[in-house]
Amino acid sequence: MFGNAPWAPLVASAITIVLILVLAVIIRKVAHRLITKVVNRAAEGGSLTSRFRKGAATDGIDALLHERRKQRAETMGSVLKHVASIVIMGTAVLTVLDRLTIPIAPLLTSVGILGVAIGFGAQELVKDFIAGMFMLLEDQYGVGDVIDAGAAVGTVEAVTLRVTRLRDVDGRVWYVRNGTITRIGNESQGWSRAYMDVPVAYDADILGVRVLLEHVGEEIWADPELREAKIVEPPQVFGVEQLSDSSLVFRISVKTLPSQQAAVSREMRLRVKSALDTAGIPMVAGA
Amino acid sequence: MFGNAPWAPLVASAITIVLILVLAVIIRKVAHRLITKVVNRAAEGGSLTSRFRKGAATDGIDALLHERRKQRAETMGSVLKHVASIVIMGTAVLTVLDRLTIPIAPLLTSVGILGVAIGFGAQELVKDFIAGMFMLLEDQYGVGDVIDAGAAVGTVEAVTLRVTRLRDVDGRVWYVRNGTITRIGNESQGWSRAYMDVPVAYDADILGVRVLLEHVGEEIWADPELREAKIVEPPQVFGVEQLSDSSLVFRISVKTLPSQQAAVSREMRLRVKSALDTAGIPMVAGA
Amino acid sequence: MFGNAPWAPLVASAITIVLILVLAVIIRKVAHRLITKVVNRAAEGGSLTSRFRKGAATDGIDALLHERRKQRAETMGSVLKHVASIVIMGTAVLTVLDRLTIPIAPLLTSVGILGVAIGFGAQELVKDFIAGMFMLLEDQYGVGDVIDAGAAVGTVEAVTLRVTRLRDVDGRVWYVRNGTITRIGNESQGWSRAYMDVPVAYDADILGVRVLLEHVGEEIWADPELREAKIVEPPQVFGVEQLSDSSLVFRISVKTLPSQQAAVSREMRLRVKSALDTAGIPMVAGA
Amino acid sequence: MFGNAPWAPLVASAITIVLILVLAVIIRKVAHRLITKVVNRAAEGGSLTSRFRKGAATDGIDALLHERRKQRAETMGSVLKHVASIVIMGTAVLTVLDRLTIPIAPLLTSVGILGVAIGFGAQELVKDFIAGMFMLLEDQYGVGDVIDAGAAVGTVEAVTLRVTRLRDVDGRVWYVRNGTITRIGNESQGWSRAYMDVPVAYDADILGVRVLLEHVGEEIWADPELREAKIVEPPQVFGVEQLSDSSLVFRISVKTLPSQQAAVSREMRLRVKSALDTAGIPMVAGA
Amino acid sequence: MFGNAPWAPLVASAITIVLILVLAVIIRKVAHRLITKVVNRAAEGGSLTSRFRKGAATDGIDALLHERRKQRAETMGSVLKHVASIVIMGTAVLTVLDRLTIPIAPLLTSVGILGVAIGFGAQELVKDFIAGMFMLLEDQYGVGDVIDAGAAVGTVEAVTLRVTRLRDVDGRVWYVRNGTITRIGNESQGWSRAYMDVPVAYDADILGVRVLLEHVGEEIWADPELREAKIVEPPQVFGVEQLSDSSLVFRISVKTLPSQQAAVSREMRLRVKSALDTAGIPMVAGA
Amino acid sequence: MFGNAPWAPLVASAITIVLILVLAVIIRKVAHRLITKVVNRAAEGGSLTSRFRKGAATDGIDALLHERRKQRAETMGSVLKHVASIVIMGTAVLTVLDRLTIPIAPLLTSVGILGVAIGFGAQELVKDFIAGMFMLLEDQYGVGDVIDAGAAVGTVEAVTLRVTRLRDVDGRVWYVRNGTITRIGNESQGWSRAYMDVPVAYDADILGVRVLLEHVGEEIWADPELREAKIVEPPQVFGVEQLSDSSLVFRISVKTLPSQQAAVSREMRLRVKSALDTAGIPMVAGA
Amino acid sequence: MFGNAPWAPLVASAITIVLILVLAVIIRKVAHRLITKVVNRAAEGGSLTSRFRKGAATDGIDALLHERRKQRAETMGSVLKHVASIVIMGTAVLTVLDRLTIPIAPLLTSVGILGVAIGFGAQELVKDFIAGMFMLLEDQYGVGDVIDAGAAVGTVEAVTLRVTRLRDVDGRVWYVRNGTITRIGNESQGWSRAYMDVPVAYDADILGVRVLLEHVGEEIWADPELREAKIVEPPQVFGVEQLSDSSLVFRISVKTLPSQQAAVSREMRLRVKSALDTAGIPMVAGA
Repeated sequence: MFGNAPWAPLVASAITIVLILVLAVIIRKVAHRLITKVVNRAAEGGSLTSRFRKGAATDGIDALLHERRKQRAETMGSVLKHVASIVIMGTAVLTVLDRLTIPIAPLLTSVGILGVAIGFGAQELVKDFIAGMFMLLEDQYGVGDVIDAGAAVGTVEAVTLRVTRLRDVDGRVWYVRNGTITRIGNESQGWSRAYMDVPVAYDADILGVRVLLEHVGEEIWADPELREAKIVEPPQVFGVEQLSDSSLVFRISVKTLPSQQAAVSREMRLRVKSALDTAGIPMVAGA
Repeated sequence: MFGNAPWAPLVASAITIVLILVLAVIIRKVAHRLITKVVNRAAEGGSLTSRFRKGAATDGIDALLHERRKQRAETMGSVLKHVASIVIMGTAVLTVLDRLTIPIAPLLTSVGILGVAIGFGAQELVKDFIAGMFMLLEDQYGVGDVIDAGAAVGTVEAVTLRVTRLRDVDGRVWYVRNGTITRIGNESQGWSRAYMDVPVAYDADILGVRVLLEHVGEEIWADPELREAKIVEPPQVFGVEQLSDSSLVFRISVKTLPSQQAAVSREMRLRVKSALDTAGIPMVAGA
Repeated sequence: MFGNAPWAPLVASAITIVLILVLAVIIRKVAHRLITKVVNRAAEGGSLTSRFRKGAATDGIDALLHERRKQRAETMGSVLKHVASIVIMGTAVLTVLDRLTIPIAPLLTSVGILGVAIGFGAQELVKDFIAGMFMLLEDQYGVGDVIDAGAAVGTVEAVTLRVTRLRDVDGRVWYVRNGTITRIGNESQGWSRAYMDVPVAYDADILGVRVLLEHVGEEIWADPELREAKIVEPPQVFGVEQLSDSSLVFRISVKTLPSQQAAVSREMRLRVKSALDTAGIPMVAGA
Repeated sequence: MFGNAPWAPLVASAITIVLILVLAVIIRKVAHRLITKVVNRAAEGGSLTSRFRKGAATDGIDALLHERRKQRAETMGSVLKHVASIVIMGTAVLTVLDRLTIPIAPLLTSVGILGVAIGFGAQELVKDFIAGMFMLLEDQYGVGDVIDAGAAVGTVEAVTLRVTRLRDVDGRVWYVRNGTITRIGNESQGWSRAYMDVPVAYDADILGVRVLLEHVGEEIWADPELREAKIVEPPQVFGVEQLSDSSLVFRISVKTLPSQQAAVSREMRLRVKSALDTAGIPMVAGA
Repeated sequence: MFGNAPWAPLVASAITIVLILVLAVIIRKVAHRLITKVVNRAAEGGSLTSRFRKGAATDGIDALLHERRKQRAETMGSVLKHVASIVIMGTAVLTVLDRLTIPIAPLLTSVGILGVAIGFGAQELVKDFIAGMFMLLEDQYGVGDVIDAGAAVGTVEAVTLRVTRLRDVDGRVWYVRNGTITRIGNESQGWSRAYMDVPVAYDADILGVRVLLEHVGEEIWADPELREAKIVEPPQVFGVEQLSDSSLVFRISVKTLPSQQAAVSREMRLRVKSALDTAGIPMVAGA
Repeated sequence: MFGNAPWAPLVASAITIVLILVLAVIIRKVAHRLITKVVNRAAEGGSLTSRFRKGAATDGIDALLHERRKQRAETMGSVLKHVASIVIMGTAVLTVLDRLTIPIAPLLTSVGILGVAIGFGAQELVKDFIAGMFMLLEDQYGVGDVIDAGAAVGTVEAVTLRVTRLRDVDGRVWYVRNGTITRIGNESQGWSRAYMDVPVAYDADILGVRVLLEHVGEEIWADPELREAKIVEPPQVFGVEQLSDSSLVFRISVKTLPSQQAAVSREMRLRVKSALDTAGIPMVAGA
Repeated sequence: MFGNAPWAPLVASAITIVLILVLAVIIRKVAHRLITKVVNRAAEGGSLTSRFRKGAATDGIDALLHERRKQRAETMGSVLKHVASIVIMGTAVLTVLDRLTIPIAPLLTSVGILGVAIGFGAQELVKDFIAGMFMLLEDQYGVGDVIDAGAAVGTVEAVTLRVTRLRDVDGRVWYVRNGTITRIGNESQGWSRAYMDVPVAYDADILGVRVLLEHVGEEIWADPELREAKIVEPPQVFGVEQLSDSSLVFRISVKTLPSQQAAVSREMRLRVKSALDTAGIPMVAGA
């Protein structure tokens, strides 16, 4: 190509190597851009819950969600970019070595043996990352949500691709590897439900108790404080849930805002108790 | 082929490359068409439950099922199309590189090492997708069904190839990976059954109680409201289910529409209780 | 072979390709025939239970079994035929590509990487199919049988190579993957057994109670209705099964037709109860 | 070898191919013979329990064992012969294709990909067969034995290389995969043991009770009916097994013929009860 | 390159070998430097908890954290350096052998067989190291923290890449392999919470009890000793946590410094008890 | 080597083949000798427990141990010899085929595919054999020992490389695969310990009871029959093991010969009981 | 190199072979030396617990630890030396065969197939050895320590690379495979803790009881016998550990020398009991 000058192959090699490296840097740049774009799109619109969240969200929450979405995109993107860089630059180095007619077999042998040895042990790690990637992609939970991760239950304090950090009610901080989570229960999406079982004596006036409980339910729904901050639907009184020789069990159920069920239950207990006391209907050790 | 003109091999290469790329695009198109067709056929007629569902379905439900079928076909098809595109375009790129006498061994080495490392970790992911694919294919459940997925029980809110999203009665949202589900229990197909065990005193009139319970059963069946919206068969009174020194346990069983068993049970409890009260037969703490 | 005419290699290639494709189609045909034959033979005579079932079967059941056998052969055959087609046609395509001196290495690389990635994840799927294949081959259960599949107990509604669909007594529909079933308990083969434990007071007349229970057993065996539709052997009264300071426990056992044990038990409870009442022997809370 | 006649290579190829096929058939024949011999020898003398069984066996049982041994040899041999045939004929076909200079790489590729895909899933199957092979080889159990296979307990109805079919006392038929059985408990080899715990009051005459129980034991041993058909050693009375403030627990133990322990226990309970009644020693709720 | 002198290839080989070895040593040096830098950066700023810890830390703790950070960096770095050395020197040796035209295939064969044999068994080891690496990297716990590692709960005494050494309250020393820890619960980060459930009689004055408990809470918060060393927030009195026929259960909760919850609980118990005694309100066996 | 005579290569091949086969037979012989020697040495001196056993063994037991050692060596050697034979002869056959320029690739392909398929399934088998090999090598137990193998507890009846056959106290024969045993508990090595907990009334004379129990212990140790055949150390009376409002629990402990603890316990119970009776100290339902 | 004499290649081969073997022996020697050195260094200074042990150790124990360290080094070294020998000599043999132009492919094939077959099954073995290696290296326990190995608890009698032999308190000897131990609890390092819970009546004088218990604690600490041989810190009296309607539970805790907690507990129980008796404070069935 350059005639038969003795320096020709050297020059040709040098040019090739420079070309390879320049190409590698360009491809890496392009790959990073691509990853950023794809990840952003995934974080914005593709999540399972995005539509759902919007429905229940006000404008203030929209800003919050936007911030969260951005963080998710960054977390996902950073690892993908690292992987892409390693593959592209590794290929470039190997190609250069090959062009220089340096034997790469010994290197590959060393790396290969090590690679297999580590590969087996690292599968848990890869599992964790893949699981974390999809959790973020599907927006299963975010910082501040109360989740049940199986190994631990608590409020999410941090989400990375490998581990999720929770803090339980006792103040204990839990590090749970994402790959060990087979199912996530998120208590902070949409609504929660507060229950109360009311066991009354066998010979109580069924209809009367029902009316009484429904009245308590209406009161709760009418309470502006509760309605605004805690409850999303009027309480329902279910019929006789359980029936034995000594007690009839009624059940009141109410949909609350996420994570407000404990507070609502406490309020409900107080109100039902005093209403029954007033009406002179004793609760019995039924349930 | 083109004589020995110096530019001949370059031209030949260029033509080959263009041919390869055009061919790849065509094959990809064909593959996508094929996938769409196959998936549609699978979604329409091949499902295990299609015949069964039709039997219980009215016209309104038919439209619903059609919509659901279409969604299933789309979900299944999208992943298959992605996979086909990657394989076809990847092959094309490798073939082009090969034609340009660019050494692809280093690239394959890099990708291969990474591939093995990820391959092990990703098997869970592939398992999830395969499981999801077959769940959709066999139409095991759809949005709105109440299912028992082992890790969680609740109403299906979303089905993707990787996870199923449920919401349990407490309002908790569960993300269950499809590959971790070994058996699905679907409560929304065909019918459910409501039970009630009635323990009466040992010296009660067996025949009398039986007749009484059968009478309650007939009343329930005769009630137009229940019959229309909730019950699909007249209640049955089974004989003595259990027998001890202090009580005889009768059992009433009734087939209801899917997920209506709790409401029917409550109604049944109320009616049996008042019938026994009227007849003066006390229930005992038997079961 | 064709002299040195310039078009000779092209013609030779074309002929070879046509030959290969024709051969592939023929081999595929033969393979399908072979599969049909083998599968039919396997379904007819080779099953573990075929001899057993015949013994208990009347002519009407013979027809049913024939139908069932045919369905099993079809289910088994369809998958085997798909696999054979894919292998044979894939081999043909690769051979043609090879003859056309098209490099197939890049294609194999792409497919290979994908294949490994999927292969790991798909082993569960293959396990399910192999398990299903052998379940059908050994005729372990069929539609209508009541089985205990570990994950769920119920009546079989459908059997495919991948999943078995059951419906339990509550009306819940269960999809159980065949590969997750390590043991099957089939309640619908041959006979079932109904038990009743009868605890009597410590100072009861052992011999008298025994005679009484044996008498009840004879009555049951003599009842034409029970004998015809439900019982296959006269009831047996076992001696003292358990012995403590407060009670002696007798046991009656009776072989029934498959799945009739619950009904027979109820009948038996009623009869034993009234016989003991008549004889004035109280049952005690023993067992 | 045949000079340079144009037809020489064709003839040579033809001869080679015929030779290969003939050789394959011969080797297959030899292999089958060999398998039959080895398997017969293994079934006859090599089993762990053969010596043991002979000791306890009469001549009638010898014939039975011979029959059983023959069946085991056949079951084991059939699979080995299939495997040998497939390997030998497969090798022959590949060698022939190779001789015909037909490229076998594409075929191997197709089969290889399929093989790996299936190989992973089929390991359970291979495990089952290997486990079954060794169970037969070691004669761990046979048709008619009562075994505890972990997943199910019952009487063996059929043994194949893949599954063992049991029937439990309730008449349920169990199919247990051999590979899932990690330990087998066989109740039908040699002898069983029947126990009875006798709790007497704290202030009872220890020596007197002991003598009484030993007397009952002698009676049982003296009973010709029991001795002939059910018991193999005189019953033993162990000393005070347990000691508390309210009761002293004696234990009687007796070795019975296999699977006769339930019947012997019932008999023992009756006799001890009446002996204690006669002697006026009350049993107490001790154990 | 050196003309055709007979010693030319020898000299060329010698030079090449020296070059290879020198290069290897240089690359090793560079790799070690790189590792030190990366690890230091990771230990300093990249940890999940670094920001969190700083918030709760005083200056004295800052020094402690610095020391701890340094140790973590050293622990992580040492293994990485070993691995890098082995890979680089191994590659160099293989390259030298290759240059000397010594056949390395037999060596690779021996090492390869051994490598596969060990590789399988060593994956647990690699898992442990990877897990330990990330635990250090994310600073999940350090010496002196009280952690719940699943297999054991206690105070961390030493952390290496393979095992974590704990001492539980009984003085037992536990060695837990890092790879077996799927989730870590750290009780020494931020705060803990002390609870006390106070069951009072059904007819107690709800409001009065509440006021009383709130008063006890204020006293505790006012106590300078507790406030300084143990408590971080004023105690809260929750409403009626549980409600039955015999008791109303109130709950007091207080955030304490890490690991101080037991001491605070003991103090709280004493104070509540004496306050209730003084007020004449009896506690009942409720919870 | 033999000039250019046309029969030269044939002769050379024949000679080579004969040489190969002769060499193979010789190597096999040597390998077997080697195995015998190594195994014998391992069985004789290398076992973990050999020194320990000798200490407790009399001359009669020495002969028994010698016999047992010989059997172990034979069991271990037989499998190793089979494996060596197969490897050596297989290599010889392949080398011969190679020399005859017969293509062995197709054979290897067939065997290889089969090998992989079986290899996966056979790992359990190999595990069993390796486990059995080491159990024998370390002499963990022998025929006649009472062991706890996890899956079953009983007396060892036979030990092979794959399974261990136990017989439990009920006469059930257990086949336990060696590879499923993760820990062995051997009750027949050195000594066992018999316990007895003696709960006395709260107001009993602690010192008096202690003296009394120590006296019983001395009596037991003085009893020639017990001392010779059953006990190896004088009984020890531990102080108050447990302390509650109603009882003080003393504990007597005595080291016995292996498997004699049940008999010694019974004896101890009788003696303690009568001693307490004589001294008028009642036992209470404490423990 | 040796001119063209006909015997030249033979001589060259012979020399090469001798060189290879001599080199192998030398390398093996060097490798063994290296292993000895590394292992000794590891055993001496690198163990996790070495510094800790020294702190609590007297001079006599130092000698003991030295002996133990030496044994550990030998145990670790022996296996590593075996492995090194096998690799080095195996490589030498293969190289020699290669030089003699003997085809080693058939040998490698045989060994390879066997190797894979065994490799899978042997991973448990390798796991055991690796686990044992690190247990020794980290000096987690030694002969005489009381450890909790999960599968068994007892005193260590022997430690090898594959199994650990324990003897539990009943005299049962346990063989636990090192690879199955995921966490070790060592009771013989540093100190143990003895607890005693003292439930007193609700209306007891809290302060008085506390003073009394503290007094008992001081007495125990003052007792020279206990202090010298058993206790390492004065006992502590914790406040009210539990609080209910019927009892107040106090807790005394004392740090003892390793494995002395049972003896100290017994002593403590006696002393607390008599102190309470003297003071007339009854213990109640609280805890």
